[in-house]
Amino acid sequence: MYVSDCISVNERGHLTIGSYDTVELVKQFGSPLYAYDENEIRKNLREFKKSIDDEYGGNGLVVYASKAFCCKEMARIVADEKCGFDVVSGGELYTALSVGFPAEDIVFHGNNKTEDELRMAVENNVGRIIVDNLTELHNLNSIAAEKGVTVGIMLRIKPGIDAHTHSFVKTGQIDSKFGFALETGEALDSIKEALGMSNVKLRGLHCHIGSQIFDLDPFELAAQVMLDLFKQVKDETGIELEELNLGGGFGIKYLKSDRPRAYSDYMRKVSTAVNSYAADLGLKTPFILIEPGRSIVGAAGLTLYTVGCVKDIPDVRTYISVDGGMGDNPRYALYQSTYEVVCANKASEKRDWTVTVAGKCCESGDLIQEWTRLQPVEPGDILAVLSTGAYNYSMASNYNRIPRLPVVFVKNGKAREVIKRETYEQLVECDV
Amino acid sequence: MYVSDCISVNERGHLTIGSYDTVELVKQFGSPLYAYDENEIRKNLREFKKSIDDEYGGNGLVVYASKAFCCKEMARIVADEKCGFDVVSGGELYTALSVGFPAEDIVFHGNNKTEDELRMAVENNVGRIIVDNLTELHNLNSIAAEKGVTVGIMLRIKPGIDAHTHSFVKTGQIDSKFGFALETGEALDSIKEALGMSNVKLRGLHCHIGSQIFDLDPFELAAQVMLDLFKQVKDETGIELEELNLGGGFGIKYLKSDRPRAYSDYMRKVSTAVNSYAADLGLKTPFILIEPGRSIVGAAGLTLYTVGCVKDIPDVRTYISVDGGMGDNPRYALYQSTYEVVCANKASEKRDWTVTVAGKCCESGDLIQEWTRLQPVEPGDILAVLSTGAYNYSMASNYNRIPRLPVVFVKNGKAREVIKRETYEQLVECDV
Repeated sequence: MYVSDCISVNERGHLTIGSYDTVELVKQFGSPLYAYDENEIRKNLREFKKSIDDEYGGNGLVVYASKAFCCKEMARIVADEKCGFDVVSGGELYTALSVGFPAEDIVFHGNNKTEDELRMAVENNVGRIIVDNLTELHNLNSIAAEKGVTVGIMLRIKPGIDAHTHSFVKTGQIDSKFGFALETGEALDSIKEALGMSNVKLRGLHCHIGSQIFDLDPFELAAQVMLDLFKQVKDETGIELEELNLGGGFGIKYLKSDRPRAYSDYMRKVSTAVNSYAADLGLKTPFILIEPGRSIVGAAGLTLYTVGCVKDIPDVRTYISVDGGMGDNPRYALYQSTYEVVCANKASEKRDWTVTVAGKCCESGDLIQEWTRLQPVEPGDILAVLSTGAYNYSMASNYNRIPRLPVVFVKNGKAREVIKRETYEQLVECDV
Repeated sequence: MYVSDCISVNERGHLTIGSYDTVELVKQFGSPLYAYDENEIRKNLREFKKSIDDEYGGNGLVVYASKAFCCKEMARIVADEKCGFDVVSGGELYTALSVGFPAEDIVFHGNNKTEDELRMAVENNVGRIIVDNLTELHNLNSIAAEKGVTVGIMLRIKPGIDAHTHSFVKTGQIDSKFGFALETGEALDSIKEALGMSNVKLRGLHCHIGSQIFDLDPFELAAQVMLDLFKQVKDETGIELEELNLGGGFGIKYLKSDRPRAYSDYMRKVSTAVNSYAADLGLKTPFILIEPGRSIVGAAGLTLYTVGCVKDIPDVRTYISVDGGMGDNPRYALYQSTYEVVCANKASEKRDWTVTVAGKCCESGDLIQEWTRLQPVEPGDILAVLSTGAYNYSMASNYNRIPRLPVVFVKNGKAREVIKRETYEQLVECDV
């Protein structure tokens, strides 16, 4: 039910995640908190991995886009599942390296990596740096030359695909801060330049067409556009690039009514296109990388809050205030994102009350969800906001100097903290 | 010039803050960073304080709304300037208490203070707790009774004033998560209930009509509405409330073209209304509290970045990528806030280039300003984004696991860190 198989209701009428009673989680770890079903995370990674095996004969790599949710334990799990780890900063790279993540399977993204970050990546033998622009290409080649090494890179290409999603999450089109433009010839020129450089090894090309996409066609189209470029490179330079990174962007279920395609459907359709189109062009099927982030962790996580105050304003609306807010979930304030809200301790009752769930921040815009359906609740009840596993902890702030929440992983009847709750002492740690 | 008297250009053509060369600041403290002119902060506090002296014969208190920018050094400065400190969480309260801020002059706000926060406030003898709703009023009275103390409170009233600003920053009207509604009779009923309680002392009433308001009329109107309520309370209970808290919301200059009223104008107009209207109603002028936050620190601070990459997309736009972004300034992504951007090392050159300033986060919406005017810049140049002193550090996140920036205060030719740059070690401190 709800948004993911890992969410259910037990015989006490309590909401469960990975069969663990969420009301018990709050008793054990305090409120508010994030909870994830570890098995769901692993299941999602394995589903993508199996598709690489089935569709490409294993000739590829599933790379978890850690910006969706990055912590040491996620890096350990991703390593354990034999997937790659996509980082977009020195901080994410540091996290991966701190648990010994294999550097060869780390992919380093970003439109503006600093020189320090590039040096850190080179010194730690990161397998693939996704180069975004010419300035970076030149800097990276210089750093690698200075250290006497050759660095594996891919170039980020904007394939010009508009995936018809929210304008903030369209990234494949030409008007984007990311990547090399195809239409203008910039992409091809830069590929040739990279191929002629002494200290970078161009492993292949990358594209990413957006986020939270439910349609399969744009992915298929992007793959074809990229293969056309592979062919053009081969024709003009004689070199057949080895790797194609198709990025991420697979939609997840935020609402019961959302209908994302099964990831295996996506993988099958795209691989059919890749395999046959490569053959048509006289190319061998390249090594395929995909970068799922949200689809690995989004619906595997939820946030638990305690209701503090119910404010019914006659003929206006009812505000339910909880003990978190835009600090732990800025996505409603940022994108008016939709979520399902459930009273965890009354989960078997009907959601027949229309309310606005507000946070505790001193800001009118601090809302979690407006005009949503909820069971009748009162102070002390536990609310669960579903599908908050991606871009909630990772975007969390200390706005109002509220400590960030702990993250609890549930697995096979056991729950453990993988990120501890921040303390007041930590909040002022950098203050002089 | 620009947005504040504390911002200028020196003989080297470099932008200065508090006469300190911003290019030197980056050399000394690294990039990116926030910088503030401490004298400007003190000047702003003193201007409000002088108005309380001039207009109310000193019968009032300027309370700095620390959610705008809270750290230990701000609490020290506010204490030094003999102003009060408005906190909205246990974390902000902890910050103030950790430097020995006088508890009597702390004002504790929030629509959903937790029981732990209320206990912390009571145990530390916070002078005024601004009670938001009946649930909180009852909880607080119980906690105070349990500890055998009487707690000073004010009730937050929604005066129903629409200050015609961005819908996210309208907070005085009835459709708000904050406060007691006037129209429905809830406010008066709750005041009477509070007056009858054993362990709270109702010191007065609070209202707050919004943020970034340039108009004087709504403030005057709000004061009148509140005094009408004082009169009604006196008529019905015989008790004349002693304190009126008029909140904050005074607009600041983000753009050169913004024309906020001088704070002294605001104070004069409102005090004239308060003094004469109170007299008309047969009330003595109450002790006045005001809560400026943004107007104390906003235009006293700026952010300095280094340009990493210039991406000119012909016939589309030019992206200038800097080494920060929505992590240190989420206000453009949240509210499409406007800012002036200046090349700090080319500040005397003309800003005749139209560009989009983008951050380094792996997200298309990570922009600092679109279609803004800038000097011709290249990688390595320093960009200053002005008026980022309020709600930038305080709303900052570690999105993409990018460490939060340091804060440097400049005063009389000296610069010192008041918040240190976060380290990678600190980023993973809570990770298990």
